[in-house]
Amino acid sequence: MANTMQKSPLAPACFPKLPIVDGVTFATIAAGVRYSGRTDVMLAKLITGTSIAGVFTKSTTRAAPVLDCQAKLGGDSTTPAAILVNSGNANAFTGKNGQTSVTAICDAVADACDVPVNRVFTSSTGVIGEPLAHDRIIENLETLNNTQSVDDVEAAANAIMTTDTYAKGSAKNVQIDGQSVQIVGIAKGSGMIAPDMATMLVYIFTDAVFEQTALQQLVSDTSDRTFNCITVDSDTSTSDSLLMAATGASGVNAQDNVDFTAALHKLMLDLSQQVVRDGEGATKLVEITLTGAVDDSVARIHAMAIANSPLVKTAIAGEDPNWGRIVMAIGKSGAPADRDLISISFGDVNVATEGWVNPNYVEADAAALMKKQEIEITVDLGMGTGTATVWTCDLTHGYIEINADYRS
Amino acid sequence: MANTMQKSPLAPACFPKLPIVDGVTFATIAAGVRYSGRTDVMLAKLITGTSIAGVFTKSTTRAAPVLDCQAKLGGDSTTPAAILVNSGNANAFTGKNGQTSVTAICDAVADACDVPVNRVFTSSTGVIGEPLAHDRIIENLETLNNTQSVDDVEAAANAIMTTDTYAKGSAKNVQIDGQSVQIVGIAKGSGMIAPDMATMLVYIFTDAVFEQTALQQLVSDTSDRTFNCITVDSDTSTSDSLLMAATGASGVNAQDNVDFTAALHKLMLDLSQQVVRDGEGATKLVEITLTGAVDDSVARIHAMAIANSPLVKTAIAGEDPNWGRIVMAIGKSGAPADRDLISISFGDVNVATEGWVNPNYVEADAAALMKKQEIEITVDLGMGTGTATVWTCDLTHGYIEINADYRS
Repeated sequence: MANTMQKSPLAPACFPKLPIVDGVTFATIAAGVRYSGRTDVMLAKLITGTSIAGVFTKSTTRAAPVLDCQAKLGGDSTTPAAILVNSGNANAFTGKNGQTSVTAICDAVADACDVPVNRVFTSSTGVIGEPLAHDRIIENLETLNNTQSVDDVEAAANAIMTTDTYAKGSAKNVQIDGQSVQIVGIAKGSGMIAPDMATMLVYIFTDAVFEQTALQQLVSDTSDRTFNCITVDSDTSTSDSLLMAATGASGVNAQDNVDFTAALHKLMLDLSQQVVRDGEGATKLVEITLTGAVDDSVARIHAMAIANSPLVKTAIAGEDPNWGRIVMAIGKSGAPADRDLISISFGDVNVATEGWVNPNYVEADAAALMKKQEIEITVDLGMGTGTATVWTCDLTHGYIEINADYRS
Repeated sequence: MANTMQKSPLAPACFPKLPIVDGVTFATIAAGVRYSGRTDVMLAKLITGTSIAGVFTKSTTRAAPVLDCQAKLGGDSTTPAAILVNSGNANAFTGKNGQTSVTAICDAVADACDVPVNRVFTSSTGVIGEPLAHDRIIENLETLNNTQSVDDVEAAANAIMTTDTYAKGSAKNVQIDGQSVQIVGIAKGSGMIAPDMATMLVYIFTDAVFEQTALQQLVSDTSDRTFNCITVDSDTSTSDSLLMAATGASGVNAQDNVDFTAALHKLMLDLSQQVVRDGEGATKLVEITLTGAVDDSVARIHAMAIANSPLVKTAIAGEDPNWGRIVMAIGKSGAPADRDLISISFGDVNVATEGWVNPNYVEADAAALMKKQEIEITVDLGMGTGTATVWTCDLTHGYIEINADYRS
């Protein structure tokens, strides 16, 4: 289970150095929710005036903490706020006990931190269907409140992991009118990854000033181009949640600022790709770019069909430039495609053009590219101007080992 | 590649004894299309008056032989007919060469067998994207025509295999007004199985009398409850084809006969389950029954979401009664479901009821059931009367070995 797997070969060399974000502090603890010998709860406290936005799983069986967060977004922001996350137990499919645990935790956090209960956001991640031992969390809240630190974000990234083989963080600095604002994000996620909104658990903090509605729009739009464009196994979690908090402590308004928007996009892309790099059993990161579709939404359907195909993903694991399976994946969704117009490249090697193998194609060239850790597949449908780029990983024995041998 | 894999542990004990169907004869040959040392082409000849119906892949990248068959269905049946099938090469995504090969083969079969070219139906199965060496087939047609036999259907079932670990056949005898009619079917299929119509390659023969339009309706309806309810890996082939030929040689009209319809359903269910039993790497056959959905189509969406989920399939491989992953799979499609009404059983063990674990559930009971080769999962959504039953297999290291290590 957690932390016992070997680190993904696609992991970044090290956890990045994350700067302090004014207005937010962190603490973590080993509460023994399910795991022993590791931290499993993190509490982030946010100053008065912090705007909080979020995107969440669209699963119809989503967990109680997700429903609770969704109900609280957009409320009054003239008070402090708190985010509490536990790993080890998702508090999902726990019947009425689900909301009971959420209410108990939120009430206790509100008391311990002197924050209104409607400004307490919680997430739970881990096993589905088992009751959450919320008392183990509640009995540690006083300690969590008393040990808050501005620079414990790396500890927070570690505390929220489940089957992750490494903690995920990213940071950007943006200059706005000669003033500096920080954006820092952490994420967890490794399996059950085919988000249909945000994904897994992601927390992003900035000291920039945002109104909540503007922040919400920015987060939704950017998620759609980052976290919503990744897949590990086509399975969608019941708990996916992304929260972004803008403390405003810098006094710098970043609303509609193009540099901030671009920096946030890069940060979210970085975190989403870190999730794919930690895909269960992954040995290859695969970027799939679809062009020439009748529109962008069709491009995305085809790109995700390729990214989710077990036969494409096993071919990549086998370092086999098996473009026939890509043709199969394009065909299966039923979205518009013309077999005889399709062109497919691996990296800069064009393997197929106008519906058949390129006469100049030398398989050894593509086979050499397939040995790399990062693979680029480009498919042109030759029908229009629609494009999409998505990210996935290969499907290996490691995925089977993790998911057939452990209860996650 | 073909025939080198160990036989599936779920395989029937032996190939069934198939009766002769009056009006159809078979021959097979080792033409060396791609494989060596095994038969890879079969030719079936059908008498004058044979009605032929079919269902085919809906893939937008479907292969030239599929398009050719679809164009020929419903034509004049007052002549003899022929079905030619090769394994080893799917003649799919071969550009204009695809139709060139089909035309060459159909013309040559028409000549060799004295059959109109519009009554020659062909299928090709195997590797995608490589040109079909149709000359190797054509040069064997005279031999195939001269060695026809009424009882070579088992040889035909062997000749059409690719990654199959065993040949698939089934037969039913129906008594109609004191007279006997035979139905005999053969199939191939093992991976790239998520048919959206028929599946893989299936050929069914009967000596009953049918008008073509009635036969087509019967075949379409029955496919929808059998082959369209199975999945191995959610990937849909570019070549899936099912042809049914009613020779009429018995002189017994079976149109609208309930016993014939029931027998055909059983035969097609048997063949479709044989395909799942030969699912690449399969060690468990899983029957998923969904009840209580708002309608049948929603029941099917949920049942297929469960059947296609890599996390559900790996849990089954691990003999883990992980009902949390079933809840996840129900949630991900977005089709109507109410988390707190869901009930889940493995075999006769109810593990969850009304959105949470059954208070009387003892995991050891479900764990014991999971050790069986055939697993039944029943999910009730508690919302209506819609039902569906689908079949799948587990996802194991064997699937990865077959698909990451071989070009198929």
